[in-house]
Amino acid sequence: MRNPHPTGPLPKGFSFASAAAGFKPRGLDLGLLASEKMASAAAVFTTNRVKAAPVLLNMGHMRRNRGQVRAVIVNSGNANCCTGPQGLAASRQTAAHLARTLGCKPEQILVCSTGVIGLLLPVEKITTKIPSLYRERETGTEAFGGFARAIMTTDTHPKWAFASFRAGGGEVRIAGCAKGAGMIHPQMATMLSFVATDASMAPALLRRALREVVGRTFNRVTVDGDTSTNDTVILLANGASAAHPITAGGREFRQFIEALENVCGGLARAIVTDGEGADRVAEIAVEGAPSDEAADKVARTIAHSLLVKTALTGADPNWGRILAAAGRAGVPFNPERAEIWMAGMKVYGTRGGNSSRHSMPIAFSEREAHKRLLAKLVPIRVVLGAGKGSARLWTCDITKQYVHINASYRT
Amino acid sequence: MRNPHPTGPLPKGFSFASAAAGFKPRGLDLGLLASEKMASAAAVFTTNRVKAAPVLLNMGHMRRNRGQVRAVIVNSGNANCCTGPQGLAASRQTAAHLARTLGCKPEQILVCSTGVIGLLLPVEKITTKIPSLYRERETGTEAFGGFARAIMTTDTHPKWAFASFRAGGGEVRIAGCAKGAGMIHPQMATMLSFVATDASMAPALLRRALREVVGRTFNRVTVDGDTSTNDTVILLANGASAAHPITAGGREFRQFIEALENVCGGLARAIVTDGEGADRVAEIAVEGAPSDEAADKVARTIAHSLLVKTALTGADPNWGRILAAAGRAGVPFNPERAEIWMAGMKVYGTRGGNSSRHSMPIAFSEREAHKRLLAKLVPIRVVLGAGKGSARLWTCDITKQYVHINASYRT
Repeated sequence: MRNPHPTGPLPKGFSFASAAAGFKPRGLDLGLLASEKMASAAAVFTTNRVKAAPVLLNMGHMRRNRGQVRAVIVNSGNANCCTGPQGLAASRQTAAHLARTLGCKPEQILVCSTGVIGLLLPVEKITTKIPSLYRERETGTEAFGGFARAIMTTDTHPKWAFASFRAGGGEVRIAGCAKGAGMIHPQMATMLSFVATDASMAPALLRRALREVVGRTFNRVTVDGDTSTNDTVILLANGASAAHPITAGGREFRQFIEALENVCGGLARAIVTDGEGADRVAEIAVEGAPSDEAADKVARTIAHSLLVKTALTGADPNWGRILAAAGRAGVPFNPERAEIWMAGMKVYGTRGGNSSRHSMPIAFSEREAHKRLLAKLVPIRVVLGAGKGSARLWTCDITKQYVHINASYRT
Repeated sequence: MRNPHPTGPLPKGFSFASAAAGFKPRGLDLGLLASEKMASAAAVFTTNRVKAAPVLLNMGHMRRNRGQVRAVIVNSGNANCCTGPQGLAASRQTAAHLARTLGCKPEQILVCSTGVIGLLLPVEKITTKIPSLYRERETGTEAFGGFARAIMTTDTHPKWAFASFRAGGGEVRIAGCAKGAGMIHPQMATMLSFVATDASMAPALLRRALREVVGRTFNRVTVDGDTSTNDTVILLANGASAAHPITAGGREFRQFIEALENVCGGLARAIVTDGEGADRVAEIAVEGAPSDEAADKVARTIAHSLLVKTALTGADPNWGRILAAAGRAGVPFNPERAEIWMAGMKVYGTRGGNSSRHSMPIAFSEREAHKRLLAKLVPIRVVLGAGKGSARLWTCDITKQYVHINASYRT
């Protein structure tokens, strides 16, 4: 992921630009992603009841624009959240300016912000930059890399992912970038992701694809359970590829879903592994739950447990903390039927095949377990023995560095 | 709280003993609390689905003993949890031994354990000590202090509280002790509390009093959202006071509730403030919620937010984190009607009395706010403007020390 330049082939018909607008003390903090012609659009927004002004604006735009979007403009360094009617006016002015420049309707523009909450956004910093952003936009990987850098806040490196597949008539390409850093500065760790494809697809089908894929990728990583006020995923499909239009039920739709999942999955894992503070990632698999929803609830309770996170930090095979977290998730199961594996070692359950026996602690080498738990990716598997529901989730550990950075962030 | 000897007058008719049984590397780790005659008993147990063997045993005993209990025996250093039928047998043997010694039924004994999960409990370490515990039990404050020390795990000091009131016929006394330490070693931070009174009360009324008071005291402190597998509060009333029996509806019942609340409230606050790792305590008050339950949900989401906790660590007036946490609690409210105070300073809301205006960030001196937030107890007040429900909760910050201790606990 520390590749300084994106390598993948970009979808056709998109251009990118970035600038230093002065929201951050230094570096790029304003980005433009534009489609040369009108694109189908789908978007997913934060479920937090406190929504930043640009999120409120975009939700309104997506209700009115019939899934037609020309461009996305993003600033980092200021979240424009909790800023009342003035904040909304700032986002609206941004969209209006860019719409005039591109010759489209304001609701065909989406606006994103990420950064500190509760600061009024000096909108002229954006509007004065729009003409040069538009003039200097380019279609190459360097421009795409600049855009990916401009949306970063506390990310230690830009995040991008690419996929392509051959369909009837030509190649379809997908490129995505994201910002959001593991456990570092989660207040600023709004998750933003922008995915562009030259596939030709109707907005309704695009929405279906995005919803399905987000549920299996971005929604499967969890850092600290804090849902940001600005979280947004936007997918644009401009049809600039020579491939035939993708329709529901066709083989191409499944190919598209698969490629989109590769891109979004790569970005989601990059988010959870990023951050100086995070040492390792746990993949938490819960099986044998009464339902998939129940399995998800148990997996999230384990993932958010401070005790499980600190055990992970210390590479401590402390499975009691995992079982105790599962026990308070509000999901019915019998702990005497449950089983737990950490880093591939069975640490709690029945020994041998006699399923009528009670689950018990299983003796294991602490030394060997500790060694295995020092890996970058630690699989944790919990089988509840209470049904067929399952869920899988990625989370990271919590370190002293995390506490240090988050405690000293503003003051 | 760092008083090395308990001072309060103890209720009549109770005796205490403690011993070093070898569960911990050194020091007292086995305690006996006995009533000289049969006492009315009430108990509250963990809601975690994973319940330690002694909790399961006690739940069965309380179903069968008609609220009649003679003694409680407690070991620290081993939680006897996730230990299957062997663990339950160990707790049952403990109760049987002590019952023979005291000449009562096994179900009139309650057994508690706290410590590491998943280790089989060598029960003979307890049973061999029972005769000497019984012989050496004493009624004085020194013996009570020894008991309070024997139940400690990672607590930095023993915790006790006393109350008394004059009722018709004589004085009623209440004494309680507890173990459980703020953010330190929460896996071992099982909350155990034992409260003894010489009031004369029927078990049903005692249960009512305990439930009411626990809801306003122990259940209002939260450390990391982890509910232990062993959490237990036990209240014994042996009627050894000369005061008339306490009945429902009488003035004495309200006096008793008030005194019990003083004891349990003192113990609960001692738990949340204990721990080398915790620097300060936040009192989180949520008002204006659709219901008290909704207010509690919002208060808990704020209290468990890692971002709020780390802001507290750094004495950072980062109210955006508080509002964002409230926003994801699943409770409907309009952020443009909400208001927030930190350490007595209004940081978000309307200025002046015009309630038709939108809430906005309120300018304040970061320096002054930081100074105020360095206090040991920091009040945080959130008014949602969505109803009349309210809730109050105490929590503590998270420090590097916490991560250090919890990451290096076992290995």
